[in-house]
Amino acid sequence: MPVLGLDVTVPLADGRRLQYAALDQAASAPVLRQVWDEVAEYVPFYGSVHRGAGHLSRLSTELFEDARESVARFLDCREDDQVVFTRATTDSLNLLASALPEGCRVYVFETEHHAALLPWRGAEVTFLDAPASPAEAVARLREALAAREDDGPALVCVTGASNVTGELWPVRELAAAAHAHGARIVLDAAQLAPHRPVSVRELDVDWVAFSGHKLYAPFGAGVLAGRTDWLDAAEPYLAGGGASRRVLRREDGGLDVEWHTGPARHEAGSPNVVGVHALASACRALAEADLAVLAAREEALLGRLREGLAALPRVRVLSLFGDQAPRVGVVSFVVDGLDGADVAEHLAASHGIGVRAGLFCAHPLVRRLLGEGPDAAAECGAGGASPLDAVRASFGVGTPVEHVDRLLGALAELTGATS
Amino acid sequence: MPVLGLDVTVPLADGRRLQYAALDQAASAPVLRQVWDEVAEYVPFYGSVHRGAGHLSRLSTELFEDARESVARFLDCREDDQVVFTRATTDSLNLLASALPEGCRVYVFETEHHAALLPWRGAEVTFLDAPASPAEAVARLREALAAREDDGPALVCVTGASNVTGELWPVRELAAAAHAHGARIVLDAAQLAPHRPVSVRELDVDWVAFSGHKLYAPFGAGVLAGRTDWLDAAEPYLAGGGASRRVLRREDGGLDVEWHTGPARHEAGSPNVVGVHALASACRALAEADLAVLAAREEALLGRLREGLAALPRVRVLSLFGDQAPRVGVVSFVVDGLDGADVAEHLAASHGIGVRAGLFCAHPLVRRLLGEGPDAAAECGAGGASPLDAVRASFGVGTPVEHVDRLLGALAELTGATS
Repeated sequence: MPVLGLDVTVPLADGRRLQYAALDQAASAPVLRQVWDEVAEYVPFYGSVHRGAGHLSRLSTELFEDARESVARFLDCREDDQVVFTRATTDSLNLLASALPEGCRVYVFETEHHAALLPWRGAEVTFLDAPASPAEAVARLREALAAREDDGPALVCVTGASNVTGELWPVRELAAAAHAHGARIVLDAAQLAPHRPVSVRELDVDWVAFSGHKLYAPFGAGVLAGRTDWLDAAEPYLAGGGASRRVLRREDGGLDVEWHTGPARHEAGSPNVVGVHALASACRALAEADLAVLAAREEALLGRLREGLAALPRVRVLSLFGDQAPRVGVVSFVVDGLDGADVAEHLAASHGIGVRAGLFCAHPLVRRLLGEGPDAAAECGAGGASPLDAVRASFGVGTPVEHVDRLLGALAELTGATS
Repeated sequence: MPVLGLDVTVPLADGRRLQYAALDQAASAPVLRQVWDEVAEYVPFYGSVHRGAGHLSRLSTELFEDARESVARFLDCREDDQVVFTRATTDSLNLLASALPEGCRVYVFETEHHAALLPWRGAEVTFLDAPASPAEAVARLREALAAREDDGPALVCVTGASNVTGELWPVRELAAAAHAHGARIVLDAAQLAPHRPVSVRELDVDWVAFSGHKLYAPFGAGVLAGRTDWLDAAEPYLAGGGASRRVLRREDGGLDVEWHTGPARHEAGSPNVVGVHALASACRALAEADLAVLAAREEALLGRLREGLAALPRVRVLSLFGDQAPRVGVVSFVVDGLDGADVAEHLAASHGIGVRAGLFCAHPLVRRLLGEGPDAAAECGAGGASPLDAVRASFGVGTPVEHVDRLLGALAELTGATS
């Protein structure tokens, strides 16, 4: 599946130029050509959605509402699920966090991305210790849920694939455990959806969140899909036009506001139609692709990368569930004696390779995998990289084998494994 | 300034096709050609921002951070103001609402768009009656602020130009009144920024909010720009990666979270780089344009439209401040004996014109201007248009004179003013 950017060359420190190797796709993926073509085709027809009466307004409204169906099909949603458009997974999980019923208790593994760890403000949160295997994850969740002292509402939040190790989590089993104990479950599919089919029905999760920018459609749209009841019962996520059905000034000077139910309740303001169209386009492209071919291609690239890294004595790959665990195209590692930030900088400056160094917005997990104490002064966000950074390489459907080979060659050279 | 879509034709009910007349630009504007060219040029170079080490990640990060400067220049911000990227004005005002200091009282005219009326949940809000003139607006605000019983924090939220009448509000005078009484003020510039220069310094407002999708850059980005103190003191708007500087698991199983200050604090999750780049591009294009020429062009179009409407006996233009008040290219009206929704539908089906019918997400204002009681069953949002709808025509920098003339001709025919 062709992506944009494969013809882009970047300057190296020695003055040469090389084709850019985009190996930070777990952060953000390049644009699928099919997505870009659909965006470019649509943009001249862009019009105000929902309340506009003109032809292009109607066309844009149809496109926007049809996008919900493309996403629902992509996720194999249940009949009565709804698709709410957000800006990204972080936004989706913050939306769900804002809609928790009174007294809801949240269960989340410490190994999660900050987007899944942190949004549950106002709720009582149980952080579960990192498990050493998928089976231990399920047992640990069961145990925690069984220890609940009341039968009030509860939510489990779990990733489908780790943004650090790429390892798959036992989502279906965790969902069964959650439901057996009267809890609900939301799947953070930000890393899973670009690599594996996600079926809400088969996994039996209550909600799924994912981002366009990791799914080859980086135009500012994301999704929260799933059950309607908690969302319809909650205060609107944003207050404004589109979410408000009727606003009346009262005799006493105040306002009476009647809110919409359904997706509109949480989508106040003019929606990002271009972004949503792009995301839906990516969903259609992936749904139509031959998944067996894509999976085989990814397995081959991943095997090549992991075998290559294993052959480098100074490189240690980070893993929670061990070598045999199934995973997607995301690999983090450390190089003995070298800071990750320096490694990443070298790969960029001397080899035209784009990877990421840091703690990957999953501080507790990466610190645990690095064997660090809690005092590591690492930052996530505006710039600062700690001296204890890991390096992450991640790829997608458009990654050529040469990019993986280039990374392995560069690391072999850097670590003195070749000479 | 050329925009996309001027070569788009749409089908009419009689089978003919006509160039689409986009006269719902107060809802969403077409894309400036310069914006589209910059987006299309950038997209193949798109890369993960902030923590990526590769060349394209750095380029994208630079582009994203440079966009703040373009926006700050466009708004003539003060040195120590900050630019936070949101998804749109609604989001910007909800962000500010989430950052109000404890006990903050909010003052807002009932005439505002719902995006400015509704976000202040949790605060005590004083809704001010619609004034009959700009001077009365200032007097009414002064009076309300003077009646405060304490000197706690207070915020005034006011539009720069009405999304219903297009009329300009006396922002500088309202800001002076607010500050004289120890209150702060946020300017909703969603309708103002596409039509007039906005200077934070000259207007002396504390914050400005506006949207890319009304500023010829409909790619899902908006802005809240202004003072840092309330925002740095508030809880992050979204909780997640990017906003969190450091996350540590505590001995007792909980989490210690250290949040960023500055824009990053409220921009958790991967930012919409393409949308932000597009918005910054629009800001640069407008900042570089000859504003006198643009203003003269807008005045001419607006004069033509308003004179034409005034000549139609069955058409009544909605106005709060009267005929002589300065205004931007936004005009709402009702047609005696015809429902606005039917008028809009006819303009679309028979003349290829896109206008909007409804209450324009400013229910209290439009009801007042229509002279309605509080029981009008009008909806704003997913579909439903009441039998008491108004019609709004609004244009922008790329609107040809022919579109205005076509609208006037169609209305003359519809109302029997021609024969």
